[in-house]
Amino acid sequence: MEIVESVPNFSTSDPKIVEQILGEVKKTRGAFLIDYTFDNYYNRLVVSIVGDKKSVVEAALNASCKAVKLIDMRKHKGQHPRLGAVDVVPFIPLKNVALEECIKLAKRFGKGLADKCGVPVYLYGDAQPRPERKDLDWIREGEYERLAEMIVKPGREPDFGPAKFVPSFGAAIAGARKAMAGFNVNLDTADLKVAKKIAKALHASKGGFSNVKAMAAFIPEKNLTQIGMSIHDFEKTPLYRVFEVLKVECARYNVPIVGSEFCGMAPLKSVIDVASYYLKIDNLTENRILEIAAQDAMEMGGVPE
Amino acid sequence: MEIVESVPNFSTSDPKIVEQILGEVKKTRGAFLIDYTFDNYYNRLVVSIVGDKKSVVEAALNASCKAVKLIDMRKHKGQHPRLGAVDVVPFIPLKNVALEECIKLAKRFGKGLADKCGVPVYLYGDAQPRPERKDLDWIREGEYERLAEMIVKPGREPDFGPAKFVPSFGAAIAGARKAMAGFNVNLDTADLKVAKKIAKALHASKGGFSNVKAMAAFIPEKNLTQIGMSIHDFEKTPLYRVFEVLKVECARYNVPIVGSEFCGMAPLKSVIDVASYYLKIDNLTENRILEIAAQDAMEMGGVPE
Repeated sequence: MEIVESVPNFSTSDPKIVEQILGEVKKTRGAFLIDYTFDNYYNRLVVSIVGDKKSVVEAALNASCKAVKLIDMRKHKGQHPRLGAVDVVPFIPLKNVALEECIKLAKRFGKGLADKCGVPVYLYGDAQPRPERKDLDWIREGEYERLAEMIVKPGREPDFGPAKFVPSFGAAIAGARKAMAGFNVNLDTADLKVAKKIAKALHASKGGFSNVKAMAAFIPEKNLTQIGMSIHDFEKTPLYRVFEVLKVECARYNVPIVGSEFCGMAPLKSVIDVASYYLKIDNLTENRILEIAAQDAMEMGGVPE
Repeated sequence: MEIVESVPNFSTSDPKIVEQILGEVKKTRGAFLIDYTFDNYYNRLVVSIVGDKKSVVEAALNASCKAVKLIDMRKHKGQHPRLGAVDVVPFIPLKNVALEECIKLAKRFGKGLADKCGVPVYLYGDAQPRPERKDLDWIREGEYERLAEMIVKPGREPDFGPAKFVPSFGAAIAGARKAMAGFNVNLDTADLKVAKKIAKALHASKGGFSNVKAMAAFIPEKNLTQIGMSIHDFEKTPLYRVFEVLKVECARYNVPIVGSEFCGMAPLKSVIDVASYYLKIDNLTENRILEIAAQDAMEMGGVPE
């Protein structure tokens, strides 16, 4: 079986808009909604779609066109950096699919969104051939608020669609990547300055781990701060190592850790690596997990010799 | 899809006999060999078979009858407690199967082994209706060496087959249980006395954790000792807690931990619980693991509302 995932990020937390965007995914044959989260402080909806290659692109496109119609970026506020109504749409190889195929899907999606809805689309990461614009931070420079000025600068034209700022939806970003780990840690302090210092210690471009983006946000309903991290290659930069450094920085400021959560789904390998580190396990791989091995054996008709 | 697992334990580490036992599993349609391990110091072969209910019982029976024919217990030495050539055969519900159904499979297997090969079979755990004989330790009292004397005692007659000691194969034990975690920790000491003290601290009947069996063994080729544990209900007695107490006891004797390994396959939940404890994750369940959720969605046609 072939499984691709797409995780579009939309700039909304309005339940009515969320429902309509999810509705587009649900009615796409061959694509399945496995998760979604949205919250007010990021004002952002993150959707996980799985399926075969064709169906996942179709579901992501249908959902994105709906978002472009319903979201008005002129009214948008939120703590997460974003460029438009459809912010970033990665395609991820999950099973029996190569990253190269997901690069093609990202391009097909980008072209589709530009053609169907007139949205300027940037490619990022491995899907972006020009090295200077691979980085999301470079693409998002100035965010939505300065997009009108940035999009017309020489060398900043989008990869698909017009180099033109449309205030209601801004621009979108598409790409392909391996599964990444999103991880949030809640700190028992309301002091955003301290939380920002801790996030900075982990963030790649500030001297932190090269595969980590970390940001701090204040969560009013809990009166505490949260370090939101994405670890883009958790095989090279394992989660336990990032967490241990986070603990060290928290200790520096006498800030207790309240709890943690994966943001979105947890990639199995990232969880295995955590357990392996703390228990000193030498040899635990995904195919040594009972449920995975059993499922694979039933599908494949037994373990190859 | 329905998945049952059986994990028969055989008293051999002779590669020729191992090969023939595995051969019986491989040629049973609908049953799949997902793992096997054997070693000289335990002199024990542990086999994992998955498949539908009927096929798994058939594979376990075929493999066991072969073992009964090939293994001569009169020549057997090994550090693991055992009662016969086929020592213990649990049936485990993995997916869309209830424990109650596995109890029926254990009884069907036990009756089959007695009828086909004349082996006395005891039921243990949830498959055993008489409370006094649920415990493996009670059934294995005196082990193979004293089985001739024990099997004829009043109240110790087997559940299936004759109450008769046959020196070449002894007796077998069948049951049903939830997946358990087998976990070995290697200690940087050759002193078996110290390792035994550490194992004792963890072992249920010696005052340790109520779901844990722990034993110490010397591994000559590495010149170190190993604590071999089985955690029978790792939801009640999570692996991290056992490991933390093991660390405390090792510190008491200044014994460094060299490394660890799951013995057999690792149940996903036991790994998740370890990661959740050390990273203070509040809400990580099996259906939040990306690969599991994706596979389930593809099979089920999406997440239920």
